[in-house]
Amino acid sequence: MLQSLKRLLVGEPKATAEAPHERLSNPVALAVLSSDALSSVAYATEEILLVLVLAGAAALTWTSAIAGAIALLYVIVTASYRQTIQAYPTGGGAYSVSKDNLGIRAGLVAGSALLIDYVLTVSVSVAAGVAAITSAFPDLYEHRVILGVVTVAAIAVVNLRGVRESGRLFAIPTYLFIVSFLGLIVLGLGRVLYGEAPIAPALAPPAVVPTAAVAAVTPLLILRAFSSGCVALTGVEAISNGVLVFRKPEAENAKQTMAWMAAIMLTFFIGITFLARQYEILPREGETVVSQLARTIVGTGLFYYVVQAATALILLLAANTSFADFPRLSSLLAADRFLPRQFVNRGDRLVFSNGIIILAFLASSLLVLFGGDTHALIPLYAVGVFISFTLSQGGMVLHHFHLREPGWRRGALINGTGALTTGIVLAVIAGTKFVHGAWMVVITIPILVAMFTAINRHYRQVGEQLRIKHFAVPDKVTHAVLLLVSDVHMGVLNALNYARAISPAVEAVYVSLDEEATKQMRLRWGLWSGGVPLVVLDSPYRSVVQPLIEYVDKIQAERGVDFVTIVLPEFVPARWWHTLLHNQTAFWIRANFLFRKWTVVINVRFHLET
Amino acid sequence: MLQSLKRLLVGEPKATAEAPHERLSNPVALAVLSSDALSSVAYATEEILLVLVLAGAAALTWTSAIAGAIALLYVIVTASYRQTIQAYPTGGGAYSVSKDNLGIRAGLVAGSALLIDYVLTVSVSVAAGVAAITSAFPDLYEHRVILGVVTVAAIAVVNLRGVRESGRLFAIPTYLFIVSFLGLIVLGLGRVLYGEAPIAPALAPPAVVPTAAVAAVTPLLILRAFSSGCVALTGVEAISNGVLVFRKPEAENAKQTMAWMAAIMLTFFIGITFLARQYEILPREGETVVSQLARTIVGTGLFYYVVQAATALILLLAANTSFADFPRLSSLLAADRFLPRQFVNRGDRLVFSNGIIILAFLASSLLVLFGGDTHALIPLYAVGVFISFTLSQGGMVLHHFHLREPGWRRGALINGTGALTTGIVLAVIAGTKFVHGAWMVVITIPILVAMFTAINRHYRQVGEQLRIKHFAVPDKVTHAVLLLVSDVHMGVLNALNYARAISPAVEAVYVSLDEEATKQMRLRWGLWSGGVPLVVLDSPYRSVVQPLIEYVDKIQAERGVDFVTIVLPEFVPARWWHTLLHNQTAFWIRANFLFRKWTVVINVRFHLET
Repeated sequence: MLQSLKRLLVGEPKATAEAPHERLSNPVALAVLSSDALSSVAYATEEILLVLVLAGAAALTWTSAIAGAIALLYVIVTASYRQTIQAYPTGGGAYSVSKDNLGIRAGLVAGSALLIDYVLTVSVSVAAGVAAITSAFPDLYEHRVILGVVTVAAIAVVNLRGVRESGRLFAIPTYLFIVSFLGLIVLGLGRVLYGEAPIAPALAPPAVVPTAAVAAVTPLLILRAFSSGCVALTGVEAISNGVLVFRKPEAENAKQTMAWMAAIMLTFFIGITFLARQYEILPREGETVVSQLARTIVGTGLFYYVVQAATALILLLAANTSFADFPRLSSLLAADRFLPRQFVNRGDRLVFSNGIIILAFLASSLLVLFGGDTHALIPLYAVGVFISFTLSQGGMVLHHFHLREPGWRRGALINGTGALTTGIVLAVIAGTKFVHGAWMVVITIPILVAMFTAINRHYRQVGEQLRIKHFAVPDKVTHAVLLLVSDVHMGVLNALNYARAISPAVEAVYVSLDEEATKQMRLRWGLWSGGVPLVVLDSPYRSVVQPLIEYVDKIQAERGVDFVTIVLPEFVPARWWHTLLHNQTAFWIRANFLFRKWTVVINVRFHLET
Repeated sequence: MLQSLKRLLVGEPKATAEAPHERLSNPVALAVLSSDALSSVAYATEEILLVLVLAGAAALTWTSAIAGAIALLYVIVTASYRQTIQAYPTGGGAYSVSKDNLGIRAGLVAGSALLIDYVLTVSVSVAAGVAAITSAFPDLYEHRVILGVVTVAAIAVVNLRGVRESGRLFAIPTYLFIVSFLGLIVLGLGRVLYGEAPIAPALAPPAVVPTAAVAAVTPLLILRAFSSGCVALTGVEAISNGVLVFRKPEAENAKQTMAWMAAIMLTFFIGITFLARQYEILPREGETVVSQLARTIVGTGLFYYVVQAATALILLLAANTSFADFPRLSSLLAADRFLPRQFVNRGDRLVFSNGIIILAFLASSLLVLFGGDTHALIPLYAVGVFISFTLSQGGMVLHHFHLREPGWRRGALINGTGALTTGIVLAVIAGTKFVHGAWMVVITIPILVAMFTAINRHYRQVGEQLRIKHFAVPDKVTHAVLLLVSDVHMGVLNALNYARAISPAVEAVYVSLDEEATKQMRLRWGLWSGGVPLVVLDSPYRSVVQPLIEYVDKIQAERGVDFVTIVLPEFVPARWWHTLLHNQTAFWIRANFLFRKWTVVINVRFHLET
């Protein structure tokens, strides 16, 4: 029944040979690989405004400067990752690049940061996607947590079925998003130019800030706003990880596509931020900044709903990319023996099922814990991202120094700038966001690294113990076979037959609880057993297990056999509840011998019909 | 660890030879066997008043008449049970008497009624015992449910440890109860005779009845009051069940003791009922009638507390008797194959542990369900008791007719009167109490009888299937031994050795998931296996189990062997959480072959050190 449910959910199994190897054209690859990066437009501006507004309207003048700094950072990071594409044309994830160049410890830190990052990408994207929908339909706002969890579960099921990253299908929402945001920005700018910029209708102060307590515009506040805005950089590395999906020449195509992505992203981010300032839009509970902006520019009409739908869709796609990345990274870590080997196996549908299930569980848990609130999750998000940026860029610097390929100095300079910049930003983010949640990530990473190391140590120890050192096939392996009997019936005779098949010298063992019954047993055994000897063990305390253990002790001490085999006759009832009507002696005997060396317990099952 | 906890709770195991065989003098036997009967004095009067008070003060004049009728009934039932003692000197429980004389169906009905009766004895007695305590300490009243559940658990633990029904210890509370109640009644009567009878200080109307809605004094109401009072008869049969604890001549001693018990019981019941009327005591929530009466007669002093303590103690003893009776009856039913055979086994401490645990669970559940309220449980209680009375007396009538022993006509007349009277009372109780809860018992009894019958049918069918019909020890039993391998390491070689011990013709089976690995495997197997052939099975869907099942199918279809043995190398991790780090392939293979005939799966375990 469980099996049928599984089939219904995930479909028929796929053969190993069906694994896809599809190459994508640049526009399609852009759609597939940039959803994570582009989708952050939906919340990055809002995060900056949310911090600045704490210091009142005056502080908002800092918005443009902060957006400019982030744009500059974006250019530096993009340039740096184009170097990675060149150096790792088969896909250079932060884990591999750090491990190769900075050593295994750095690799594990990058790996931990990435795993956390993927979980948060799902949580944040789904929370933001749900926010886009509840902005359009405010009645749904109170159900945002359950909507988020259901969405995560749905994405997980789709991924367990195994989505082909079928380019065309994925391209639709991405280009819908690009076109609608471009339209929104152009329309918005047009109205600004013609002096028609209306003011957002609902200028209620943001519910998260008590208006009375206005903070001062301190450098710390500015840095916090900057840190919050840095979520705009999430997903920028996706193209450098997926070089192999491009057509030949892969590296060239990937670099070109990355430039396009950066251009689109920056246009949108700067455009939305600029327009939000022009239309004097402030963040408030229950409606996103983008939704307010769209309502103000185009009114609550068809186009507004298209913008919201496109936002929600690209955010779902962004969440979906983590469902490819997290299981893939888990399988890499598991292949290197840092995670349980179950993560290496592909499931029925050729996907890494265990990784998908765990990711869905973690992301849903975060959604529930943080009440489905994008803003509450952001401080956790950026830390992990910038740790992997810094390690990856730093690794690239060493890579250039090791390799000294043509133009390596220029490459090292670019990556060095990248590493330095992202390192500084990382320090800023960790510092300013620590108390707001970044501490959780700062704590979790060393825990994960310790776990990876412990798992690896275990696997190495097991490997050492299982390694064949001095082994010669022995001439003869000896064993004593005991058949435990409590009565003489078909089930016992069936087991007796089996015992005789595995040894010519079977001994039947009977635990005596009652004299009369023992006398009967001896008689009946003599009648039916065909000469197999019967050993009777006394049991003053009515336990079956204890005398058996003592007898096995005695055999092992006296006879010098390699193995002792205990054959247990057992019958299999026709209905599960019938098991309640029979003593579970076989189970207890198994449990008692489970951890005993050189003893093998065999259940020989006799199947009842009714 | 679980084992140590068990030892702490129930103590060290006892040897079978330690089973006690103690005989008791009549006064001690009276104390041991009559706690259930005497303890009903604590609530019987209150139950009568609770019904009559529904019709206002005028109806209370019926109290004496009802008490008189119940006293008459008591005499008839006692006389009838003295016949049973004579006829069944080894102890004549309603189950045995009904089964012997009326057939197995009647026996099962009596057995069901008794089991229900025992559960309710525990619930009612504990609820009433707790009520005696909370009457004295009203602050505890709100905790009555948890107090009741803890009390049941404590009695269960004591019984799991195995109480010797040590006469002297049990005699103390019973005689304390007899002496204190006798004192209370004498004092109360004295004050009535001298015209000093004061009125109970707190004559608040009973909280359970809205004073506005006074019912009419109908025959139905009188019958309901009578039915409620019939709980006074519970426990009357205890002496006839326990004839064997008396000294020789057992039957004579038992009959004498029964007469004493009836005399004491009737004195107390009539005395308390009479005094309650004289002192105009009415039932009310939070304090029992006996407690009010004691407070009124002797004031809230030391003697009052002694009375309450004695009441609580004898009620606990009454509950305790069920912890001997329920497991004993279950073991009888199980020995006759109407209950799972686990009920026949004596535990470590020579007690029927399973029966004790189930009784404690059921009685606690009832306490929780009915809010620890004696009054709510009473309608369920009386039905079961009178069913077993009627069947037991009815069985005795037939017994006399079959046996025609000297004086059998007189015996048949006494038992016939008993059966007829209790039968009529049963009808009255079932009729008047049906909607108040008796329906639950009326429904449960046929369900239990159906369950007993189904269990019995199952055991008979199993017995038939296991019965040896045409069996001859075969000359030779053939089997194919497959060793499932996924690698070559010490664990696999250990299993290979074992496989070679049980068969000279082992075949290793390898499921190929990857071509390169398969090539490696062939090489390494050739190197280490000492010539054991390797069968490679393809698995296009990456399943290990499916190809193995197909291969076993093939062997069973083609080779004509008796058994197929699958040897699974497995390693046992040193720590439990290490199991998470390894594929549970062995587990899944076992599960898949569990219900397959003529296949035996053997795990050969290799023990890791770290």
